[in-house]
Amino acid sequence: MAIRDLTSERLFIADDLAAGVSVELAQQQAHYLTNVLRLRPGAKLLVFNGRDGEWQASLIESRKRTTVLGIEEQTRPQEQGPDIDYLFAPLKRSRLDYMVQKATEMGVRRLRPVITERTIAERVNSERMLANAIEAAEQCGILRVPEVEPPVSLETALAAWDPARALIYCDEHETAADPIATLRKVPAGPVAVLIGPEGGFSNGERSRLLANSYVVPLPLGPRIMRADTAAVAALTLVNAVLGDWQRL
Amino acid sequence: MAIRDLTSERLFIADDLAAGVSVELAQQQAHYLTNVLRLRPGAKLLVFNGRDGEWQASLIESRKRTTVLGIEEQTRPQEQGPDIDYLFAPLKRSRLDYMVQKATEMGVRRLRPVITERTIAERVNSERMLANAIEAAEQCGILRVPEVEPPVSLETALAAWDPARALIYCDEHETAADPIATLRKVPAGPVAVLIGPEGGFSNGERSRLLANSYVVPLPLGPRIMRADTAAVAALTLVNAVLGDWQRL
Repeated sequence: MAIRDLTSERLFIADDLAAGVSVELAQQQAHYLTNVLRLRPGAKLLVFNGRDGEWQASLIESRKRTTVLGIEEQTRPQEQGPDIDYLFAPLKRSRLDYMVQKATEMGVRRLRPVITERTIAERVNSERMLANAIEAAEQCGILRVPEVEPPVSLETALAAWDPARALIYCDEHETAADPIATLRKVPAGPVAVLIGPEGGFSNGERSRLLANSYVVPLPLGPRIMRADTAAVAALTLVNAVLGDWQRL
Repeated sequence: MAIRDLTSERLFIADDLAAGVSVELAQQQAHYLTNVLRLRPGAKLLVFNGRDGEWQASLIESRKRTTVLGIEEQTRPQEQGPDIDYLFAPLKRSRLDYMVQKATEMGVRRLRPVITERTIAERVNSERMLANAIEAAEQCGILRVPEVEPPVSLETALAAWDPARALIYCDEHETAADPIATLRKVPAGPVAVLIGPEGGFSNGERSRLLANSYVVPLPLGPRIMRADTAAVAALTLVNAVLGDWQRL
């Protein structure tokens, strides 16, 4: 792991990336590079699209209405990261932004909002979630931007669940002895982490979850946490025990 | 662990707490209870002072200038939590607020800002840090509010270090295989977690750290993280392996 360094600009662009191609930027990105960062022709930056790895690019032209990047050489191959779905009850705006950024830094593959009984029902802004995921990926050099799934009810998510994917959920009623020992028992394969709303799961939801053999309740210590803290804590333990934080 | 529930108000007050005493609140807290929460005489809430545990109190009087709480019965004894010092290079304001709140939820004992070579030097507002720690403690029912130490240079902190306290630091250059195995080697006893600035430690700082037998470099996976994310991740692993997240 590295703490983020601020030395090189990284930009997500939708276009395919390959040596020698040039990419015309959308106005907003052009504005950012030329007016906010004040990059001039010849300036180097890094670009990625979530598919083709990371590439060095240079600003080859910058006029009022068109900014073009020349894609030069690949600096990193595309990486996949761990197969972790992250299911979460949407939080209020700023904490949701934060949670999405953190889940992206934790390398999750999919962001899956689930509506639970105690979810403070707010319109879930999928575009805003994707924008936050992209921003976190740009800042932290994450080459795989998480997919943002449309919100569904917890019921619906469970009804369609693939039992091959362990569902690790953080439950305030869970009293298992040891989070690491708990995760070591999870069979190898795809996993999902579920964080409930502030206020927790209802008893009905808890029983519906625990009725499934693929569900693993994860204890996170004796203290109460905000939901966004529990998210980073759970994803940390899952990465450390089941994910890609071990170089074995 | 429990996700925060929103059912009971918790208030930090400086006064000693015991059954039968009454406490006159400062104006700001009085305003919060009577005008923001609109509590009326007889309303119940929870109070704590970081020393005497958690107590049920009721609003026994509320006039324009004086709001008095009657302390009734203890709801939880004082808890100590793990002996974890948290050392961190101060971040910009909102991320520092967040980092302090998260460290409090993680149950750290002391908040110790350290100035490193690449710290984006800003005035460190200790009062603001304490206010954020208290807010997090109120929201999450943490009965021990972390102490806030004055900022010192990393040099000074190391010069005065008690070698009995392991110093676990997160280093972008660390390539140890497994964070959990790394922490399992740390001898039982007090610990500290050190998170560097965005931009990381200098080579000089790194050598000065590694020259000490009490220093344990902790790897946090292959991805870059914001410093405040690394803080929650490192404190999670330390709690899970060395702290009080295991009920054995």
